[in-house]
Amino acid sequence: MKIETVKNSIGREVPVLVPGLGEFAPFAGPYARLEGDYAWTPRLFPRKVAAPSTDKVAESLEEAIRRSGLESGMTISFHHHMRNGDSLVCRVLFLLEKMGIRNITLAPSSLGDCHDCVAEMVRKGVVSRLNTSGVRGEVGRAISGGKFEVPVMIRSHGGRARAIEEGSLHIHAAFLAAPACDRLGNFTGSSGKTACGSMGYAMVDARYADHVIAVTDNLVEYPLAPRISVPQYLVDQVAVVDSIGDPSKIATGATRVTRDPVQLRIAELAFGLIRASGMLKNGCSFQTGGGGPSLAVARYVREYMKERSIRGSYCIGGITGYMADMLREGLFTALFDVQSFDAAVTTSMADNPYHMEVDVSCYANPFNKGCLVNDLDVVVLAALDVDADFNVDVLTGHDGILRGASGGHSDTAAGAKLSVITIPSMRNGVPSIRERVQTVVTPGETVDAIVTERGIAINPRREDLRSAALDAGLPVKDIRQLKAEIEKITGIPDEVKFSGEIVGLVEYRDGTIIDTIRKVL
Amino acid sequence: MKIETVKNSIGREVPVLVPGLGEFAPFAGPYARLEGDYAWTPRLFPRKVAAPSTDKVAESLEEAIRRSGLESGMTISFHHHMRNGDSLVCRVLFLLEKMGIRNITLAPSSLGDCHDCVAEMVRKGVVSRLNTSGVRGEVGRAISGGKFEVPVMIRSHGGRARAIEEGSLHIHAAFLAAPACDRLGNFTGSSGKTACGSMGYAMVDARYADHVIAVTDNLVEYPLAPRISVPQYLVDQVAVVDSIGDPSKIATGATRVTRDPVQLRIAELAFGLIRASGMLKNGCSFQTGGGGPSLAVARYVREYMKERSIRGSYCIGGITGYMADMLREGLFTALFDVQSFDAAVTTSMADNPYHMEVDVSCYANPFNKGCLVNDLDVVVLAALDVDADFNVDVLTGHDGILRGASGGHSDTAAGAKLSVITIPSMRNGVPSIRERVQTVVTPGETVDAIVTERGIAINPRREDLRSAALDAGLPVKDIRQLKAEIEKITGIPDEVKFSGEIVGLVEYRDGTIIDTIRKVL
Repeated sequence: MKIETVKNSIGREVPVLVPGLGEFAPFAGPYARLEGDYAWTPRLFPRKVAAPSTDKVAESLEEAIRRSGLESGMTISFHHHMRNGDSLVCRVLFLLEKMGIRNITLAPSSLGDCHDCVAEMVRKGVVSRLNTSGVRGEVGRAISGGKFEVPVMIRSHGGRARAIEEGSLHIHAAFLAAPACDRLGNFTGSSGKTACGSMGYAMVDARYADHVIAVTDNLVEYPLAPRISVPQYLVDQVAVVDSIGDPSKIATGATRVTRDPVQLRIAELAFGLIRASGMLKNGCSFQTGGGGPSLAVARYVREYMKERSIRGSYCIGGITGYMADMLREGLFTALFDVQSFDAAVTTSMADNPYHMEVDVSCYANPFNKGCLVNDLDVVVLAALDVDADFNVDVLTGHDGILRGASGGHSDTAAGAKLSVITIPSMRNGVPSIRERVQTVVTPGETVDAIVTERGIAINPRREDLRSAALDAGLPVKDIRQLKAEIEKITGIPDEVKFSGEIVGLVEYRDGTIIDTIRKVL
Repeated sequence: MKIETVKNSIGREVPVLVPGLGEFAPFAGPYARLEGDYAWTPRLFPRKVAAPSTDKVAESLEEAIRRSGLESGMTISFHHHMRNGDSLVCRVLFLLEKMGIRNITLAPSSLGDCHDCVAEMVRKGVVSRLNTSGVRGEVGRAISGGKFEVPVMIRSHGGRARAIEEGSLHIHAAFLAAPACDRLGNFTGSSGKTACGSMGYAMVDARYADHVIAVTDNLVEYPLAPRISVPQYLVDQVAVVDSIGDPSKIATGATRVTRDPVQLRIAELAFGLIRASGMLKNGCSFQTGGGGPSLAVARYVREYMKERSIRGSYCIGGITGYMADMLREGLFTALFDVQSFDAAVTTSMADNPYHMEVDVSCYANPFNKGCLVNDLDVVVLAALDVDADFNVDVLTGHDGILRGASGGHSDTAAGAKLSVITIPSMRNGVPSIRERVQTVVTPGETVDAIVTERGIAINPRREDLRSAALDAGLPVKDIRQLKAEIEKITGIPDEVKFSGEIVGLVEYRDGTIIDTIRKVL
């Protein structure tokens, strides 16, 4: 699709009108809408009154779809708490195909490697539009190859919550995988054979979708107790299936600290920077992910806090068993868990009342009255590529193909007082610091430092942090100097060739368009 | 105010248009809107985006009011979880008077004996309209005496949740008393010196009000943990005051089983009827209140369940320490607590994860996807008066003056499979069974039985229940026969004289008008 574009505040060409998607405002700076007079209208849509019924349990998932009134052209959603163990997305899409329902907008909180079926469903016309945080595998190749007629919409986790609440993402039917569910639809992720921990994404979909179907392989006696993630009054139907997924694939990334020397070095430097910033003190708050050097950073933080008897305030984000251990050791007062990254978390969530489940609006919606990321002290984030303006790409690979997820990256970077990007200086001989990243997900204005094993680049906006890092003896380098050093080893790779065709939009957390994804030639 | 009226389905004259309040539909039967094609639109209103801020704590409550943008003519709300210990309503109204803010619509979840200040504020023009579940004391006399220019709107707890969610009750600023609150507005009722248990009403106000101020006398370190009733992302400001109320007055009604022989006899008969109904079996659910014969009924139920090793499903409603004990004994799987009736409950709520806090939409909003009352087995309810059509008045006293509360009465009666009204046959020599109650709150169609110490009247719609009761040897009487027996002792009291002027509307849970309150001459 050829679409007229304008240049946004970071120089990216973005559309203001996309046929089939509507009008958009160009990105104008990470805090422009927050600090201006922008007013928003959270929206719910007209609903048929739910007659008193104890008959929520449908005879089958197919029957539930039929009773929901779902029609061709509507929008359906899923959560991605089952991660690569999810089997519900494909199960529902195959049923829709069978039922002759077509032209669906698919709007899951994210997609992963297990969702190759979506590419097939696009070819068959069952799915025609996609809203998601991330895509991988076949689906990414289909998008980057221009197989969708309407550009795909990529949103951050906080941005998706905002879009749902303001009604720009209007979900007709939400299919919510429920590891334990009772006959009236109370459900939780913290028990059952497919327990996956927090249901933070499902909680928002359940509140705003017109029709909500809890799909479970574990119908428990009424009432589900003691943990209810989504209460019955938000659920229209319960459908029982043999399996909602493979619990062994719920864990994402490493659950043990890496032994890779490059990643350990990055972690050591990242920790050194955090310590030098002076933010690791009583009452500090912290987010780090599950993969790469993240757990290694967490290990350094843990040891440091123990040695100095520091008691932090809270950890948020994708929560790992490692974080649950830190909570148990009293290093933090609480965990706010919007999604759980490994199986160890499930036990903690079920048994430790200080391990608190939060919905994704609480976690990161920038427009509500104070999401958690906005008060965060330190976040450690990974990246696919970064550039000389500190912009971060977590979506497109070196070949230009979509294979990542926006996630909470731009949300936490904008909210945290210190945002640290950890990235190996090169991957398979390709340098990670580019002149200009292919796709901006997180604007450089919200990134404080980029840490590689060859040195730390600090955003010129943060002279205070640069001084502190130098005082601590850390290897601080100008980003162009660091880039040049790396390129001496790798050379400068050829640019990927793109057509002008826009195949995807990257929406910033506030609803403006920060970048586009172009078709790969 | 003289207003044109029409006759509704139970023969009451009700208005379809009230200047200053808008248009209304007459009551057409308890399930008319639920079973028909009525569609509703849950509404949220446009909001200024909340800029990231760690400065939610206002310098004073007055400053918080100023920053909220509250103006004359707007609507403010409060919860009544502090019951007769509440001091926040009067504190805020006196501040509004001082600040010159007038013509306010006051929309608390309920008012009690401690709120005589409201009558003064009506005289002074600070408050001009009132939406509430209940009124007592001075305020009731002011309403019944015609001191409000616009009729007062009385709603049930479920109906208020519905009205807020559909936007017919649009709250500009909610002032929510918070027994424990942190600097970003996370708050709970289950700890602190004024702990009051569940925050079920506050939870809905917080989600839908344009501006939310948590008012606390107990600012705790961030983050509040482990119990959060209302999360920070719904709260705009935190105001710290010396006291939000008197915790010794939070308990309502009796916390010990009555020794009054009349009440014990009523309880015995009510229990006999419940047992005869066959509903006291594994998986049963139950609601009873705190006062009068309620705890005595609960005691019979407790003993019976223990003897027979019956394990029930859940208890709901105003939760007493007695119910918490039954939970601890394993007689029920869970408590769903929308409001707590005595101090013993606070400990249970804090420590027992099976004692679950629910919001009032979950409890009783008839329009959502399945509130708790709609699946309830047995409810035992009190009354001020009943009539030969089984209609129940819980609002007006024998003198015609408003002195009661709609509460969850009509919600539970409509939802429960067995609704039992317990009432002494006479009070101070005045009979309790009237030809026609002054004010219908709960329509007779939803009442199964009326239990007095002189016998049980069973609704002719429940022939099955009548047979079961007779088989159990219970003193079942035709309601007119029972009425006549009582009148033989008491005589028939003179009718109270009313003018035609409408001073209040009684809204049924579905938003239709079931009755009016008239000015007392």
